[in-house]
Order: sequence, then C-alpha cells, then structure tokens
Amino acid sequence: MERHVFYISDRTGISAEILGRALLSQFVEQVKFIEKTIPFIDTVKKAEQFRQLIDETAEKSSLKPIIFDTVVSPDIRAIIRQSSGVVMDFFQTFIGPLEKELNTKSSFSVGRQHSIDRVGLYDGRITAVNFALNSDDGASMKYYDEAETILLGVSRCGKTPTSLYAAMQFGIKAANYPFVAEDMQNLQLPPELKKNKKKLYGLTINPPRLHEIRTERRPNSQYASLEQCRLEIRLVESLYRKEKIPFLNTTSKSIEEITTLVLTACNLERRSF
Amino acid sequence: MERHVFYISDRTGISAEILGRALLSQFVEQVKFIEKTIPFIDTVKKAEQFRQLIDETAEKSSLKPIIFDTVVSPDIRAIIRQSSGVVMDFFQTFIGPLEKELNTKSSFSVGRQHSIDRVGLYDGRITAVNFALNSDDGASMKYYDEAETILLGVSRCGKTPTSLYAAMQFGIKAANYPFVAEDMQNLQLPPELKKNKKKLYGLTINPPRLHEIRTERRPNSQYASLEQCRLEIRLVESLYRKEKIPFLNTTSKSIEEITTLVLTACNLERRSF
Repeated sequence: MERHVFYISDRTGISAEILGRALLSQFVEQVKFIEKTIPFIDTVKKAEQFRQLIDETAEKSSLKPIIFDTVVSPDIRAIIRQSSGVVMDFFQTFIGPLEKELNTKSSFSVGRQHSIDRVGLYDGRITAVNFALNSDDGASMKYYDEAETILLGVSRCGKTPTSLYAAMQFGIKAANYPFVAEDMQNLQLPPELKKNKKKLYGLTINPPRLHEIRTERRPNSQYASLEQCRLEIRLVESLYRKEKIPFLNTTSKSIEEITTLVLTACNLERRSF
Repeated sequence: MERHVFYISDRTGISAEILGRALLSQFVEQVKFIEKTIPFIDTVKKAEQFRQLIDETAEKSSLKPIIFDTVVSPDIRAIIRQSSGVVMDFFQTFIGPLEKELNTKSSFSVGRQHSIDRVGLYDGRITAVNFALNSDDGASMKYYDEAETILLGVSRCGKTPTSLYAAMQFGIKAANYPFVAEDMQNLQLPPELKKNKKKLYGLTINPPRLHEIRTERRPNSQYASLEQCRLEIRLVESLYRKEKIPFLNTTSKSIEEITTLVLTACNLERRSF
C-alpha cells in the first residue's frame, strides 16, 4: 500500500519532517510512504497552490494524502484544512491545552507569530562548529583546555561526525583525539590529554564493522585489514579501562544517540538555539 | 512567571525538544521556561525515578511541570501520566488518527517498538559529511564533479556551516568555493566552476555584519576591515549577477533556513535517515 505524505511549514519544514517521520516509523511495515516537503508556505497564495497540489494528488491516488503541518498562521492553516488531505496539525492540537495550563494566550492566538525554527547564524552554534573543525583529529592540542569534552578513538570510529553534531545541534564544544597506527607500539595518553582527563570520553567499534568502513576508504590496505582493526580496538579499549575513561561502542548507534550518550555521560547541558 | 519543562524520550529526546520548543516559542513573552531534557527513559524503573523528579519539582514550585513526551512504550507512558506534571503526549495524540486513516494498526499498538530517531552511522549522511569536510573551502576542486551543489562566497559568509548542515540533515553533498582577497583584482569563475555552472549557488552577507564576524576572528586586520568587506561583497555580488548565479543574503537567516533555501533553489530532494 502506498500513501502520499506532505510535510509543510511556513519556514524550513524540518520540524514537520522530524515529527511526522517519528509517527510514520510506526507504520513502515505496512505502508510505503511517498514523502514530499514543501517549505516556506507563508502566503495565502502559496497555501492555495498547495491545496490544489493536495487535491490533485488525492484524485490521482484516490487516497487522502497525509499532511504534517507546522504552519503557525491560522489563516494559512484554514486553507490547508479545506484540502482533500488529512491534516495532522501540531499547533492546533497542543496550543489549546498549553494556553489553559499556562493560563495565558499564545502569540499564535493573538496573531503575533514567532518562527518555530531556530535562528541566528553566527552564534554559539557556529562558534562550536568552528571549534570542532579547528580541533578535529588532534589538529591542534591547544584547543583541549577550551573543549567541553574530548572524544578519543581510532580512525573512523565516529569521532568527527559526533563532534560536529554536538556543535550543530547542542552548541557543545567537542574536540577529538585520534589514536593512529604508530601509537599502538606503546599506547598511552599524551600529557595534553592527561591534563584534561575529566573531559575524556572514548569511542570504540566492533572490528568487523571498522574493517568494512576502512575498506571503503582504502581498499586492501594494512590500515583497513581486519587484523589491524582488531589490534587497534583491543589496545585502545584496554587503555580506556586502565585509565578509567568512560567509553561507548558506536557500532549500531546513530549520530544522535552517540552524541546524546556522550553529553549525558559528561554531564553537559544541551543548549537550545 | 517561571515554569519547569521536561522533554522526555526513550531515545535521544531530540524530537521531544523540537516539538516542545516550537510550541513554547509562542509563550516566551509571558513565561520564563526552565528546561530539562531526560533521554533514554526506556525502563519502568527509570520512569518511576522520573515521576519522582516531577512530583518533587511540582511540590517545590507549586506549579505543574509541563512534560513533552515522545516515549513509545505505553507502559512507561502510563507511569509518567501518574505524575503531577501536565503531559503533552505526542504518540498518544496522533497515533489513533493515523491508524484510523491508514486503516491499520501501528507497531506501537501491537507492542513492537521502532526507534523514533534516525539510525545508521556510516550511511549516506556520513559519506556526505566527509564529502563536505574534504571539499571544504576549495580544498580540492576534483570534488566538484561529484558535488550536488557548490556554494560560493567570501570568507565567513556561511558556506561551511551550510554545507555541513546539508550533509548531516539531508545527506546532500555540498562542496564550497571561497573567493579570497587575492581574487578581487580580477574576479572571475575558475574553469572548474564554469564546468559545473548549474550547481553553483552564491552566498552573500551585509558588509557591516561580515566586518563584525571577521573582527572576532582577526581583530584590526585588513581582512576584517569594513572597507575590505564592502569591496569583496560588491565585487562578488556583481560577479553573481554577471554570471547569472542565483544567490542569497545570509545576514539574518539561520543555518536551517539557508540550507533549505539552497536546496529548494537547486531543486535538490531532501533525503531522510
């Protein structure tokens, strides 16, 4: 069974996608969803065009399209509700109960609209993203004193995506330090890391998965060999244990999960933007 | 007026934060929210601990805490509903209407739980993140043929955060090319860019804002001077016009907005993970 799904918003549509997909993930075994995001529906004219698109889609597929709607303006949402789609309306649903509980009117109700996405380009996030880039892969250890957490691990275990996500999503300054093949002879923490021991968090990964990832990068290399992957992981995990550094196996985890687990373990507060 | 808010989830809590903050943004003029995210509430024991925390918070503040809940398990949610908080229950609210419309039971209802966050570490996203990093700031023009879009602009106008966000959120391969001071004498498109002209998208920014951002990076430099910023922006914008390259002013836009506008302009489909 196929079903058309639309994510719509007066801004980027990212919130509508995230919320809609969370719900649809509970139906993916039974239904194939054909998804489309339409951002910036911020005028009556664009809403009318969207309504027409919905009506046409409904007619073609003879099933009502499902619409996840995070548009703030009641005028625009009224037009969308007149379409042949089934509207899951986030504001409509929760604003009423919140107004009642907070005992006040929302700006939504009184016609002053706030954006629902996060704003501000050169703020803490960008500073944190630049920090992650500048301090990536041990590029410069002088950043470690400024870091809120320092991720350790062998090449391709997930350090860089995690530090970038921590910066972008939560404004956290995460540096990282890679253990490379040459370190394996006599594996130990460099003095710059010892000095910041409370910030250290280790990543590890199952050797067969690491072998797979490295093989994509450099096929048939010593670097990618299963033997080398096994050796590095064994030594690094034993260093984590010896030095009592908390660590996490990233093998079957998403970037979101790894980052959340690191922040929780390091007791770092998420920032919002 | 102050109010405690909790975002809770059996996974990362990112969806709960997005939902809750979108709604609370409509009340920020009247209420000061004290926010806390509690991820990984995935056992009855953790749910009981959370209920206790809510009850204590309610007693101390003599106001019911507001809870945005994206926990999937009905057993855990039942415990949370017994707390003194007001629960905005995401699954409870929308799963019923979706089941009715799709005419099928969700995995949620039949007790098979899917994660609501995105999974899979070394997938298209990571490939795209690595692509953005490797091709950053014109590091290697050989990547341009593989890129889905190529962002142009002067130093610090938003190219790097945008290409990273496009990769992380949408799995889009975005390269970028910086125009530097030395290019300004005789500003033109290098042959590698001309070859990929359909992929080009320009970023610009108001000179006073650029001056501010560059001053933070290198105070009192020629690079950061308002005069230099004005010159670079004037020349680059006139190149965009001459070459008919679509462009965008990033001054008052969030990374999410810039990325969404670039994707829309370049007709790139967002990927989901």
